Amino acid sequence: MRESYHEELTAVVDDLVTMTDHVQVAVQEATQALLSSDLGAAEKVISDDAVLDRLHDDLEQRCFVLLARQAPVAGELRTLVAALRMVADLARMGDLAAHIAKIARMRYPRSAVPESMRPNFQRMSTLASEMVEIAGRTLKERNVLDAQKMADHDEEVDDLRTHQFRVLLDDSWSHGVEAAVDCALLGRYYERIADHSVLMGSRVIYIVTGLHPDGENWTIA
Amino acid sequence: MRESYHEELTAVVDDLVTMTDHVQVAVQEATQALLSSDLGAAEKVISDDAVLDRLHDDLEQRCFVLLARQAPVAGELRTLVAALRMVADLARMGDLAAHIAKIARMRYPRSAVPESMRPNFQRMSTLASEMVEIAGRTLKERNVLDAQKMADHDEEVDDLRTHQFRVLLDDSWSHGVEAAVDCALLGRYYERIADHSVLMGSRVIYIVTGLHPDGENWTIA
Repeated sequence: MRESYHEELTAVVDDLVTMTDHVQVAVQEATQALLSSDLGAAEKVISDDAVLDRLHDDLEQRCFVLLARQAPVAGELRTLVAALRMVADLARMGDLAAHIAKIARMRYPRSAVPESMRPNFQRMSTLASEMVEIAGRTLKERNVLDAQKMADHDEEVDDLRTHQFRVLLDDSWSHGVEAAVDCALLGRYYERIADHSVLMGSRVIYIVTGLHPDGENWTIA
Repeated sequence: MRESYHEELTAVVDDLVTMTDHVQVAVQEATQALLSSDLGAAEKVISDDAVLDRLHDDLEQRCFVLLARQAPVAGELRTLVAALRMVADLARMGDLAAHIAKIARMRYPRSAVPESMRPNFQRMSTLASEMVEIAGRTLKERNVLDAQKMADHDEEVDDLRTHQFRVLLDDSWSHGVEAAVDCALLGRYYERIADHSVLMGSRVIYIVTGLHPDGENWTIA
């Protein structure tokens, strides 16, 4: 029983890593939908979100069963606690990617992002995607070596969002209200994907060290 | 041990109800900050959010300890599973109220919401606050009698948000980009508070019936 329990715990973490890969693909495809007006990519992200939701439900259930039946302690308990939080993070990140894809689909064949804002969103989406990747690698390897890179990326995402607001609230903004509202919401979705990536990193720190780093700045752990 | 365990489980649910009350106050005060340009109310919601975060951390920890040490089954397991999800819902609702308060503070002494949009936001905030209240009462009394009211409120919130977009994207919108962006984000925050209230209701259905209702429409359970 204990052996199959350890195997099941390992399988839960492996499946979380796989789910993180799926989320990264969703973020990349949502960006493709948004910045290349790719309707097929948008539809794919939106329909694949149901797959992520099923993965969430399955993984969450397995964590609760392990918690309830095995009375884990110390590192194993921390792993299950962290896994439960991460699976919720990942489901939410999938939802956010789907929100981006829905805005892309709504404006198709136009792009929701005006030409002048594209470099900002290109960079923001690249950072968000890389942060998801770092979160997955950190979980897979149980190390926190990429913590500084995650923190730097997160800071840059925040700066990009501040810049977005500066541009779209400036008197020189000529793209109208709809584009401004789209950009404000899109910026928030990418920022939230980045936030959840940082939180995932902080969950790994919790697994490894037992400490709760500040979600806003996981390098303090 | 079992007795103190049952007492602790009861205390966890009681504290969740109390936390729901705090969240309802936060939503009401954030609305006061927003619609009455009340800077004091805004500051209070923002600083009280840290209290909600501490309640979250404390309650979550206690749930994990109960799960890990007591190996609960059936109704008790469901209660703990649901409690863990609800405490995450409530922390997030507190964050959203703080986001509303921050927009109110940023635009003070002006109001972020133009006069023509105030009835919409007044109604939306009333519905969101009532939904939080229904969620708390449903949890406290472990009954789902208010399910239809929750569903009706949620539908009205969605309609109000659709209406917001229609107004602020209309050619006749004369309040500029900043007000449009503020309203789009504020509408999203209230909508998310309503969503989490619905989810809380669905968690109670899960406790009582063991069934997972569709989060979007908890009356199907």
